Amino acid sequence: MRILILGGDGYLGWPQAMYLSRQGHQVAVFDSFMRRKADLEFGFDSLTPIQALYTRVEAWHEVTGKTIEMFIGDTMDYESLSQAFKEFKPEAVVHFAEQRTAPYSMIDREHANFTMVNNVVGTMNVLYALKDHAPDCHLVKLGTMGEYGTPNIDIEEGFLEIEHNGRKDILPYPKQPGSFYHLTKVHDSHNIMFCCNIWGLRSTDLNQGVVYGVETDETKLGERLWTRFDYDQLYGTALNRFCSQAAVGYPLTVHGTGGQTRGYLNLRDTIRCIELALLNPPARGEYRVFNQFTERFSVMELAQMVTEAGRMLGLDPQIQSLPNPRVEAEEHYYNAAHTKLLNLGLEPHFLSDTILESLLKTAIEHANRVDKRLIAPTVNWRRTLNMVRDETGQPASQPELEALSLDTAELVSR
Amino acid sequence: MRILILGGDGYLGWPQAMYLSRQGHQVAVFDSFMRRKADLEFGFDSLTPIQALYTRVEAWHEVTGKTIEMFIGDTMDYESLSQAFKEFKPEAVVHFAEQRTAPYSMIDREHANFTMVNNVVGTMNVLYALKDHAPDCHLVKLGTMGEYGTPNIDIEEGFLEIEHNGRKDILPYPKQPGSFYHLTKVHDSHNIMFCCNIWGLRSTDLNQGVVYGVETDETKLGERLWTRFDYDQLYGTALNRFCSQAAVGYPLTVHGTGGQTRGYLNLRDTIRCIELALLNPPARGEYRVFNQFTERFSVMELAQMVTEAGRMLGLDPQIQSLPNPRVEAEEHYYNAAHTKLLNLGLEPHFLSDTILESLLKTAIEHANRVDKRLIAPTVNWRRTLNMVRDETGQPASQPELEALSLDTAELVSR
Repeated sequence: MRILILGGDGYLGWPQAMYLSRQGHQVAVFDSFMRRKADLEFGFDSLTPIQALYTRVEAWHEVTGKTIEMFIGDTMDYESLSQAFKEFKPEAVVHFAEQRTAPYSMIDREHANFTMVNNVVGTMNVLYALKDHAPDCHLVKLGTMGEYGTPNIDIEEGFLEIEHNGRKDILPYPKQPGSFYHLTKVHDSHNIMFCCNIWGLRSTDLNQGVVYGVETDETKLGERLWTRFDYDQLYGTALNRFCSQAAVGYPLTVHGTGGQTRGYLNLRDTIRCIELALLNPPARGEYRVFNQFTERFSVMELAQMVTEAGRMLGLDPQIQSLPNPRVEAEEHYYNAAHTKLLNLGLEPHFLSDTILESLLKTAIEHANRVDKRLIAPTVNWRRTLNMVRDETGQPASQPELEALSLDTAELVSR
Repeated sequence: MRILILGGDGYLGWPQAMYLSRQGHQVAVFDSFMRRKADLEFGFDSLTPIQALYTRVEAWHEVTGKTIEMFIGDTMDYESLSQAFKEFKPEAVVHFAEQRTAPYSMIDREHANFTMVNNVVGTMNVLYALKDHAPDCHLVKLGTMGEYGTPNIDIEEGFLEIEHNGRKDILPYPKQPGSFYHLTKVHDSHNIMFCCNIWGLRSTDLNQGVVYGVETDETKLGERLWTRFDYDQLYGTALNRFCSQAAVGYPLTVHGTGGQTRGYLNLRDTIRCIELALLNPPARGEYRVFNQFTERFSVMELAQMVTEAGRMLGLDPQIQSLPNPRVEAEEHYYNAAHTKLLNLGLEPHFLSDTILESLLKTAIEHANRVDKRLIAPTVNWRRTLNMVRDETGQPASQPELEALSLDTAELVSR
């Protein structure tokens, strides 16, 4: 299959590209380097050293003899996107190419609007490129479980049969996303469903849980093939962050009570889920939704698991509760269906002691690369604050941070 | 009350401004003249002659002694929007300032993306302006009944109590919008609900039906105060279009079977509904939704009513069915709640023979201003086509129009 991976230089896109290439597919990646530019903007870096895309692709060819084609372009630039479609002639497109973090979208108006426009228009352009150049092509779109929020009823996979006043219909599952980033994913979902309906496109919308891990069979083929490991306050997800924190003797920072429960999955399972979606495409005109996660944990459960695993490795992790910068329920019902990918053959890699130990070892190995100043949350949902500079162009001052009731001073100075 | 009307130069915005001014409120209008620019872009014009905003405001002062303040600006330009908030210090904002037509949003990728960005970012800017400058201010936002689509169950006002697997929750009503324009309104609704939640803003989201009519107590005060009457294929809604068609002996063009049923309301009721929302604001942090319409009709019912009313006036209207350019159910269940505004005191002006006759007379009076070439639909949901020029910059050719299976040639040449 000819598979074009939008965002193919990212945390998930790159291992996905290698995996599909190794399975014998023709793979091309398309990337604007947005994630790498964010590192420059904020002074972040991957905990694991990663190579430039050119080097990655070259190394992949050296190690496996296989070729991953490369397009440097932006979904916001329809010309470059069209060019990739016309040259590569994809039979499937995997769309990772979005601004992918909630805190980034909550920094200030500029970052919120950037997220809105980049994700919504970028995906609109992908839809038009499909219509114009590849109407039979299967769009696999990365959404998030966060689109659903935390309703007090079971979460289903995209649609819900509703009986109301004696009549029935199957309707899109009501969404209650919790950040401007999550909102863009909901907007995308509505836009994609509509285009499948009017233009006969076919799409799988994957409501993905939080992904953890950096290791796949392909990343293990050489250091130059590693993917990124984010621990910073914008891109670092809870489990990666806890591992980095444990590795450098920084408290595991739990936001609020830690009762926030979400779906999680291993990087290996993400990659396999997308392969399963690709191998089992929907019909023309069909828009379907899979919930893509394998287990659920509360944030506090994860912190406790990392604490225990850390002790086995001679560390002494401490859990510290921070005031929650987000507006979200900290104790809530959470029961989300996730059977469709299992039915297609997914065999989950559950979060075991071994996997946790391996993640922690990765963090310990690269502990000298951890910049503690990047971990504490300074972006607050209630009162957005530019984490880099305040309104006068100065870095946000300590009083400003304290006004957010975040005990960051002590943390940053550790 | 100090009320800022975004889009205050438009079809609804201008009569709303006059009405509220006459009720004794301090009123300011903010407008970018987007609608008037579309007239220039497409060669359209209002059937009723309308004056420039400066003239309108001057005439209003002459006739009533009252002042409507004027801000020329664009919601996309945060500086101009902020300036209006800072100078006028609104206690309420009525937000009409969006690209408001479905066919426009379906012309091509550029118009679709313009609609997405203009409406979504424009509303994001309004939300930030509220947060930054007037967090206690009440946002009255114009949405559309079209956000709901045509589900096979009763439509409720914004939220639905759902019982599922033995548990209950009240969730946002699932949306199935039918054009990129309608999609932007759904996106706005999600974004506004979120901002009420995180920032404690207060908002009323009005899911409005199709508005008809051009007459209010204020427009009757003088010709210079008239509002626009659109009959063209982009901005003209079914009833206005039928009246114009009847007036010039053009067939009443029904798209498809005409079974498409929607909610409708008189311009006078729109204005009163918004006043009722303003006089009964929600609490801080509250996001509420009212369905704003008074009656429902199928397109064919409207065509038949216009036919009968036309005959009373000596016309001989004919109904002609055109292939439906939209992708929509033509025969469907439709039962939408609309009690909240009635409970606040709305006394509807139903579509009577008198009102139809008055609308038809307006069309007959200005029949010499009808440009028949502007009526036939050339924007097709399945295969978008630039109605003004094709890909080479030329006007869309007759073979291109015929390829859309639209019998426009005969119509245009009448």
